[in-house]
Amino acid sequence: MTSSFNIKDKGTENLYAPVDYFLALPSKKIRPKLCVATAKSIDRHLKIESSVFENTLELFHNFTLMHDDIMDGADLRRGAQTVHKKYTTAQAILSGDILLIQAYQSLSKLEDSKQLSLALKWFNYTATLVCEGQQLDMDFEQKKQVLTQDYLHMITLKTGVLLGLSMVFGGMCTLAYTEDLQALFDLGTRMGLYFQVQDDYLDLYGESHKTGKTIGGDILCSKKTLLYLKALDNTSNKEDLIALYHSNSDQKVERVKDVFNTLNVQASILKDMTTKKQEIIDQIHSTTLFKDKDPLLAFFQNVSNRQG
Amino acid sequence: MTSSFNIKDKGTENLYAPVDYFLALPSKKIRPKLCVATAKSIDRHLKIESSVFENTLELFHNFTLMHDDIMDGADLRRGAQTVHKKYTTAQAILSGDILLIQAYQSLSKLEDSKQLSLALKWFNYTATLVCEGQQLDMDFEQKKQVLTQDYLHMITLKTGVLLGLSMVFGGMCTLAYTEDLQALFDLGTRMGLYFQVQDDYLDLYGESHKTGKTIGGDILCSKKTLLYLKALDNTSNKEDLIALYHSNSDQKVERVKDVFNTLNVQASILKDMTTKKQEIIDQIHSTTLFKDKDPLLAFFQNVSNRQG
Repeated sequence: MTSSFNIKDKGTENLYAPVDYFLALPSKKIRPKLCVATAKSIDRHLKIESSVFENTLELFHNFTLMHDDIMDGADLRRGAQTVHKKYTTAQAILSGDILLIQAYQSLSKLEDSKQLSLALKWFNYTATLVCEGQQLDMDFEQKKQVLTQDYLHMITLKTGVLLGLSMVFGGMCTLAYTEDLQALFDLGTRMGLYFQVQDDYLDLYGESHKTGKTIGGDILCSKKTLLYLKALDNTSNKEDLIALYHSNSDQKVERVKDVFNTLNVQASILKDMTTKKQEIIDQIHSTTLFKDKDPLLAFFQNVSNRQG
Repeated sequence: MTSSFNIKDKGTENLYAPVDYFLALPSKKIRPKLCVATAKSIDRHLKIESSVFENTLELFHNFTLMHDDIMDGADLRRGAQTVHKKYTTAQAILSGDILLIQAYQSLSKLEDSKQLSLALKWFNYTATLVCEGQQLDMDFEQKKQVLTQDYLHMITLKTGVLLGLSMVFGGMCTLAYTEDLQALFDLGTRMGLYFQVQDDYLDLYGESHKTGKTIGGDILCSKKTLLYLKALDNTSNKEDLIALYHSNSDQKVERVKDVFNTLNVQASILKDMTTKKQEIIDQIHSTTLFKDKDPLLAFFQNVSNRQG
């Protein structure tokens, strides 16, 4: 198609400025890094350049953040104003839409159309699950009680599967077989779940100057994280904990933390995390597809050792 | 990929109910109809089934409506409550996102991966232009004055190009050549522009029981339509018209209509429309690609003769 309409030529600053603003904020680029680490662990010589996949993953991730921040009414993201705060809600909706379209646009640059068709199916599948996860997250906000297993299901969808897709895309760079892609998706999804549990943990037990967030932010906004659900599972006094957690009392974070300490929440989560971490490392070691374990192990160790 | 996460299995009613609600509202299905009419005018025997394209067009169109209605703060759509009114803004954002993903998902069902790659490029291109058009539309809301040519550019992007894509997709059903696709895009875009001008016209000069809308709705919300811009072009008393148009005066619609009558706006727009309509019909006749003019002419006559 010719550019008879001169895209980005006139008067569309208000659409692209929020996109440029958001993409310029610091990002850990975990998904592109996982894509590349996966590819390199499978085959040192990539058959398809990874950049198309990396861009798709990062653009899609940014799309979800921009829209989630509107839905969650969040003021800050990556230490800066969220898009709907800095600009308007309408702009955040439309600029998010453009980011999603750009994610597809990046993918459509794949030269081999058979690979494109395959990548597109995985991308659509994952994108759908991510939206379902976000809806479940919003639903849980409204519920008095949430089961731990339902919470884990929700974060698997909202956060986990996009890491699964990152590994699938990494596999595609090496033209991995279809059955291997499914295994990569499952392993990446488990990593994503691990990282989200780690996020929940660091929100309370991390250090503010490393996480860049207020310590106990999740408690302040009564978010039903794994820490809270585990505390509920362990307490004999559910009603008091529910009341405290949903209150606006003075020193709420300290008071909730005291309850968590009594219930051994920190040690219990840490134990779970250590087990899950070892399982993931073991799986990397036992997967014959990974000829060189180092890139993937280095990636996982790097992200899972972070303090913020 | 296996459905290890059982899409749509549990707890996602709040995501899919708004989608189902919106898709069940009556739609004229102009875009799918144009796609099919184009294909049939080129070749009675389609090489690719049109349903994939039809669904993509309708899903994308519905995505734009759902998000535009949030941005515009609209209460009614197709005679029923808009999604963000019936449900929540968060749900309307997320359900709109799912519709956009479903539009891509429909397209990805194309079996021939070369065709998929081509269709995807056209779709991404068009989707980007549509978002740019929506941004310009919002920008114009904030401006005191808008030039007629800028308004026509805006509705070309916001409304026109999707009709262009409908014709491109129709051409693809017959495996039309690449250079023909560009010509189809341009013709469809002109049709879309015509239909939007007709919408502007019918908003004031149509009949309420046929349009299903309040007569003069655009005037009531001070929308800078082609009627208004033409009146501004023709009047020697711009300031008074601007003040009246942006007021909340009693009988505003009647008073603006009186000014329009004095300035011959109706006749002038009708004359333009007649010329444009004939140009489009002439072009259908002169395009050798269309072996049978009837399906396309019937479609265009049908839509352009509507009173609502």
